[in-house]
Amino acid sequence: MTSQLPTVRLRPKANARAIRHGFPWVFADELVTDRRTRAIAPGAFALLEDEERRPLGVVTVNPNSKIIGRMMDQNPEAEIDGTWLRAKIARALALRERLYDQPFYRLVHAEADGLPGTIIDRFGDVAVIQPNAAWADRMIADLAEALREVTGVSTVIMNGQGRVRGLEGLDERTEILSGQIAGPVEVPMNGATYLADVIGGQKTGLFYDQRPNHAFAQRLAKGARVLDVFSHVGGFGLAMLAGGARKATCVDGSAAALALAGQGAERMGMADRFTARQGDAFAVLEALAEEGAEFDVVICDPPAFAPSKPALEAGLRAYERVARLAAPLVAPGGYLGLCSCSHAVDLAAFRNSSARGIGRGGRRMQLLHSGQAGPDHPTLPQLAETGYLKALFFRLDG
Amino acid sequence: MTSQLPTVRLRPKANARAIRHGFPWVFADELVTDRRTRAIAPGAFALLEDEERRPLGVVTVNPNSKIIGRMMDQNPEAEIDGTWLRAKIARALALRERLYDQPFYRLVHAEADGLPGTIIDRFGDVAVIQPNAAWADRMIADLAEALREVTGVSTVIMNGQGRVRGLEGLDERTEILSGQIAGPVEVPMNGATYLADVIGGQKTGLFYDQRPNHAFAQRLAKGARVLDVFSHVGGFGLAMLAGGARKATCVDGSAAALALAGQGAERMGMADRFTARQGDAFAVLEALAEEGAEFDVVICDPPAFAPSKPALEAGLRAYERVARLAAPLVAPGGYLGLCSCSHAVDLAAFRNSSARGIGRGGRRMQLLHSGQAGPDHPTLPQLAETGYLKALFFRLDG
Repeated sequence: MTSQLPTVRLRPKANARAIRHGFPWVFADELVTDRRTRAIAPGAFALLEDEERRPLGVVTVNPNSKIIGRMMDQNPEAEIDGTWLRAKIARALALRERLYDQPFYRLVHAEADGLPGTIIDRFGDVAVIQPNAAWADRMIADLAEALREVTGVSTVIMNGQGRVRGLEGLDERTEILSGQIAGPVEVPMNGATYLADVIGGQKTGLFYDQRPNHAFAQRLAKGARVLDVFSHVGGFGLAMLAGGARKATCVDGSAAALALAGQGAERMGMADRFTARQGDAFAVLEALAEEGAEFDVVICDPPAFAPSKPALEAGLRAYERVARLAAPLVAPGGYLGLCSCSHAVDLAAFRNSSARGIGRGGRRMQLLHSGQAGPDHPTLPQLAETGYLKALFFRLDG
Repeated sequence: MTSQLPTVRLRPKANARAIRHGFPWVFADELVTDRRTRAIAPGAFALLEDEERRPLGVVTVNPNSKIIGRMMDQNPEAEIDGTWLRAKIARALALRERLYDQPFYRLVHAEADGLPGTIIDRFGDVAVIQPNAAWADRMIADLAEALREVTGVSTVIMNGQGRVRGLEGLDERTEILSGQIAGPVEVPMNGATYLADVIGGQKTGLFYDQRPNHAFAQRLAKGARVLDVFSHVGGFGLAMLAGGARKATCVDGSAAALALAGQGAERMGMADRFTARQGDAFAVLEALAEEGAEFDVVICDPPAFAPSKPALEAGLRAYERVARLAAPLVAPGGYLGLCSCSHAVDLAAFRNSSARGIGRGGRRMQLLHSGQAGPDHPTLPQLAETGYLKALFFRLDG
């Protein structure tokens, strides 16, 4: 089989050594892009060679992407078929089964789980695939079949939304590949109950990456009045209700997300402790200050204000503004959690913006904890600088 | 009272703005050190002014230290007495009581808890103070009294060991300030039982900072054969036994530490699953490889190989060597945890050294989790780059 793969070759300037040591990507300017290479169908496989024609492995090629090659297997003889896919998914599953008691997690986290550009979230019997690389889009049926065989899920959804697919030249498309979906899926996490809209919601319907940060926030929750800003379906708010919060107020721009948060609180039997407030988060923060509102714990988990490097400065200013508006709402000696899911913002920059905002909000602080995405979101050390999720927990002055 | 404090003044080059915004230190070259300032007794208090003679707060002065001034209180009228000490300790206690069910934690973490240079670890009814700044050394009796009053501990120990005291010009001295100690103290943590030698052990007898990393390792432990290298009193090994490990082997150079680890396993009723191996960790790792030993989880938590910047290069090489020797002992698909408590080594540098070592040990890896010290070790955002503890958890190839 492999002998029939086309061959692509690195330019002398490319870092063949890094690739040999596990770096998973070939950038467009590192590959000899002759007519033959440009003619490769997006998502097809090819044999990658270094400049001296030594084989480096099987890659998937996408001439439409800046990441023109993604390593599938360093074994140049590898055949990327159902057997191969099942082995990768089984390996990913073994890790999650060691980490979690219940089948609710990110099952496949792209390159780090050996399936480049491919995200799979599992919600019990339901799985959602985000094929964000052309090969996965092309092999979506094989992926879904392997997934069903290895995990036993019955419903498989393809979620082809989002910015990343555009970078690969893929269109937006969502469909149910097998099974069916009747309304939101119930997700138990950290003792809370969430409702995930796996078809119409943001990303795959729920953000598993915040699980350890929800858990940290729970430790601060007992008896507390809690404000969860940019709450989505109630991530921090419901976790803190489960952790013993007296009252949780969720703020979001989306009425649909807030309705799901409210339904989650209902399923938990805590509807009486839950309040939703729809609106622009900045406006709501300002209104709450005018009302003289006070909370024991405030968490702000905004969307990515700096999704890319050009947006960095504006993004950091937005994070500082969130901190400045949120800090005055925290009771003396209370807690403030600030999150960023911006790739372009590193931990130190986010910490500085947050601390400056808290200072401008008139408060002094201790930094208690710097959280990140959970271990169902593994990374390759070679790409670890892209660890995108940061959650800072501060205690403010008394 | 305050009017009787001597006055010290910042030089124009000093960053008065940073100090006003919460930076807690004045370096020796930032202060006007006239004869009067040089004559201040180490650990005495003074009123700090900026170059235009505006008051910045009450500092403690130590002409023997590179950190010549440490901010005690930004209120220039503050009186640093028993009432003041009790308020600081009460504030620190409130945080720990929110975070932990049992009174075993770092109670005071120096600057971030408002007590510059002062560490207090609590072991139930026993507290150990490390007065690593001259003022705390001078006021040790007041500190001990405030501590007893606020927390109700009966035994208070002063532990005046370690490199840091030397930088402050303080001698090495350990004494029981009140109460008594009859042998090691039993410490429950993460479901394990540790024995801490609070008089003769390293630091304050137990490393609370690793608590969240022990907890993470526990999630990998079920049914596993575990190797805990540089185990001290069994930090990771006993945590993993509590987490269901089949067998734990602890390696350390100290027979005394290993004996305490063994006694901990006994108290847990798990002595049959515990093995100790005394010796140089590098030599033991090499010997285990020769024996063909294999473990499902290997954790290496060495002493600081790079305690200061000049030791950085050698330190990184030592971390790489640990990783290279440990990786081959991990079973296919097993887990490797690597820790560094070196201030001079940042997360990225440690991650690179670790990944290189694992690669040279012949293994491929996913990075699952980057841990740090627990929230009973808060930091000031202005000093957060000194976050010294890093714990990386890898899954190795199958």
